[in-house]
Amino acid sequence: MTYAVAPPWRKSSTLAPWERRGRYATLEADSYVTPAAPAGSHPLAEPALSAALRARAEAIEVAFGAVEPAVRGIVPRQFEPGFAQSACEELRAALGIDVPPAMLRATWTSPLDARALYARSVLGTFCRLVERGFDRNLAGLAEGDDAEALVHRWGFHAVDVTPCADGRLGGLVDYILRVPPALVASRTPYAGAMFDVEEALRAWETAELRRREEGRSAVVPARYLKIGVYHFSSVDPAHAGCAAHGSDAVRAATALLERLQQFEEAVRRLHGSVAAVATLLVGVDTDTDAIRVHVPDASGRLSLERAVDNAALYEATKNVSREAAKEIVRDAVAACAGVSANDAATEGMRWFCGYLLKNNLGQVDAVRAWHGGSYADRGHTERLIVAGDPMEDVALRNLAFQAQLTTVEEGAADLDVGMKILRERHEAQDLCVPVLVHVRYDRQIPGAHLRAEARARRLREAIFARYARIEPFPDPYVEAFVRGGEGALEAVA
Amino acid sequence: MTYAVAPPWRKSSTLAPWERRGRYATLEADSYVTPAAPAGSHPLAEPALSAALRARAEAIEVAFGAVEPAVRGIVPRQFEPGFAQSACEELRAALGIDVPPAMLRATWTSPLDARALYARSVLGTFCRLVERGFDRNLAGLAEGDDAEALVHRWGFHAVDVTPCADGRLGGLVDYILRVPPALVASRTPYAGAMFDVEEALRAWETAELRRREEGRSAVVPARYLKIGVYHFSSVDPAHAGCAAHGSDAVRAATALLERLQQFEEAVRRLHGSVAAVATLLVGVDTDTDAIRVHVPDASGRLSLERAVDNAALYEATKNVSREAAKEIVRDAVAACAGVSANDAATEGMRWFCGYLLKNNLGQVDAVRAWHGGSYADRGHTERLIVAGDPMEDVALRNLAFQAQLTTVEEGAADLDVGMKILRERHEAQDLCVPVLVHVRYDRQIPGAHLRAEARARRLREAIFARYARIEPFPDPYVEAFVRGGEGALEAVA
Repeated sequence: MTYAVAPPWRKSSTLAPWERRGRYATLEADSYVTPAAPAGSHPLAEPALSAALRARAEAIEVAFGAVEPAVRGIVPRQFEPGFAQSACEELRAALGIDVPPAMLRATWTSPLDARALYARSVLGTFCRLVERGFDRNLAGLAEGDDAEALVHRWGFHAVDVTPCADGRLGGLVDYILRVPPALVASRTPYAGAMFDVEEALRAWETAELRRREEGRSAVVPARYLKIGVYHFSSVDPAHAGCAAHGSDAVRAATALLERLQQFEEAVRRLHGSVAAVATLLVGVDTDTDAIRVHVPDASGRLSLERAVDNAALYEATKNVSREAAKEIVRDAVAACAGVSANDAATEGMRWFCGYLLKNNLGQVDAVRAWHGGSYADRGHTERLIVAGDPMEDVALRNLAFQAQLTTVEEGAADLDVGMKILRERHEAQDLCVPVLVHVRYDRQIPGAHLRAEARARRLREAIFARYARIEPFPDPYVEAFVRGGEGALEAVA
Repeated sequence: MTYAVAPPWRKSSTLAPWERRGRYATLEADSYVTPAAPAGSHPLAEPALSAALRARAEAIEVAFGAVEPAVRGIVPRQFEPGFAQSACEELRAALGIDVPPAMLRATWTSPLDARALYARSVLGTFCRLVERGFDRNLAGLAEGDDAEALVHRWGFHAVDVTPCADGRLGGLVDYILRVPPALVASRTPYAGAMFDVEEALRAWETAELRRREEGRSAVVPARYLKIGVYHFSSVDPAHAGCAAHGSDAVRAATALLERLQQFEEAVRRLHGSVAAVATLLVGVDTDTDAIRVHVPDASGRLSLERAVDNAALYEATKNVSREAAKEIVRDAVAACAGVSANDAATEGMRWFCGYLLKNNLGQVDAVRAWHGGSYADRGHTERLIVAGDPMEDVALRNLAFQAQLTTVEEGAADLDVGMKILRERHEAQDLCVPVLVHVRYDRQIPGAHLRAEARARRLREAIFARYARIEPFPDPYVEAFVRGGEGALEAVA
């Protein structure tokens, strides 16, 4: 059962601690606090932020939309004299990318490999967008220097998000949750959000050690928050849900909740600290982007049945004042936690849940305004797979399937889900699946660059080996890159 | 250049801090302090400990030596009535192992797979020895409760040993270095000792967090000691050295030194603590078991050229009194470090190096006494490969090639070295290479047991896949086991 909120319209003059203070985000103007807002203008909508996010989405769509016409356009002229040179220039002009001359050499016995050229152009476009460096903070998500203070105010010292690798959650942080990138310390997607508990434990140990080194533990007792994100489809639940869990929302949520509990229990048993870790379970309806927040109860326990559903909350708040809407969110969270709205012990987590719900109402509003309630592409339209370390720079719904893996041997199940999804669409059009291998390294660790290159090469070979064997046609098209910190992508030979 | 010691026979009434206090180890009796000790009775020899170690080695050899005769013996009778039953009983009586009935069923069209039966019996024997649980402390290595105190006295809070995976270093901790097992917090062998710096960093972070949690950091400033161990052959340097480094001792030592420096530098850069980590480089002559200790200088720097060579030290000390011998060791270490023997800043590390050298003189003495100076089997005679997590329980020279790996994909280079080594010997005798997949798990982590089984199965399949493809005959014979803590080995179906 999900709490659709029984709202006692309480008044409060205090601003909630989730108020944005960013450039576009300061939507405190009275004009938005209208009792009955018109469609697309929910009292908690953030039109300026939504517009900025939409502009970014459109810029990304335009860039990828240009690939097929550009490649198609040059193919018929491949036997003309001077083709390689002119095609290279054309692609540079149309897509802003440089294609290696060898890919543009065509003879009557060896014509262009247009499928490889297309895949290369998709990857090149992705890399160009990464390098263009969308300033995610400019999109109005920034809380500036406040991000860390904000997190601390909620009682957390780090926020770790583990979503499903599904491309429809690609815009999770920026679009769906609308939280500042600085707020999320790490994001590691896995098929079905099935993260490795031992690996998560090591990540926690690293974060905890850093916290102690910085002497933060002595100042404020703060917890490490791990958020697991599953997803489902409200329009076509039996087919458009999570592929890794057979499109079964209950199965997806159950499995993820179990992992979160295992992780929490492991930290407790091995490090003896009861208060070291908090967990949160969040569901996303990939048709409407509405989230479902499983608010922990007073003892920190999560439940599949107890959740605040933002689809219902949207309806309950769309015709009230801004302040009243916030009250409704606040009360729904408290009711779900089973505590009073003034309970001090659960305050930090409740504020955080309210912050996520309120932000997400803005996204639900935007999806309704632009897509008539839900996305037209409720299935998969991902353009590439990112395999290796996650890449957040070009975050957009349905753009990339991100498979977090160190080796294909252990990550094969994840990658298989992605390959199956992308092959369906690409094979129908006689296209290769573009795969970008991405390995991060820490510039501070001597030798890390060379080891990252070796790992990227190994992943590239393992992907070829696995998918060429299973089904020879069409092969995936794989290129490998490494990246040190926030530096440029470096192609690996 | 290695320091072969210029000994100023200084007198000292204080016992060195490396004196053993265990059951066999208290060799303080005057009888051993003879000015000119007979062969096999070096003044720093530990005959009782050596005898105990030898008895253990012989028990292990006898157990494995019984496998071939037992299996050979039953093969000619495979077509007799009641064979499966009687063979099963015979193998149990001869080897103490239970062979699955299916392996003992023979018909005139499907005779016994004697190669599989042999390999299975080798693995079964290994498992039986693990379960018999040689009490390594009973071998006289124990310092009892003193191990931790001892480590702290040297200024370390944990000792991490990274040797080459070569089977000739199998007895490194018990035989060659003769240190109590409790003293070594972790031992992870890699082919050529080429450990992964990022993985080592994570292991350090885990240890450092634990230390801080236990509040030990506040009491004594102590360092994490990482020891890298390479090896070489004094008798046949060009062929019987480290296979992973082309039997080139300088190459092996150079590569390992570089890794150690990268590790130290990574901890320094990422965690800012100059004094957090100490590194030590040790070489082993696999013909004589004599070690070469690259003592750090006053600033903690290691050098390939600066080392105390225990082969030379053995000669320099064999005809002096016990006290004089200790003085020689002490002075050799100080000379190598380039400090006076009273230098307080380097005292802990120098004591530790002296402890290793003195212990190892006992092993050099034992090898000389039993093998006439050097081992007869200077090459490889390993009986199995242990792949996955290291297994210390049955530690003996040339018994097992231990390949530390999480996946075959990233550990293939290590495993290839081991397969190449074992195939040479096994193929010549028309035998399969027995491979034991071993995955440890932490009983405290919920779900860890199931994940360990999955990992063990994945490793087993990946090993089959890799080596069946490269060379179909003879295949490796692979069985998988998991183990929680110090519990029993659990076979994975």
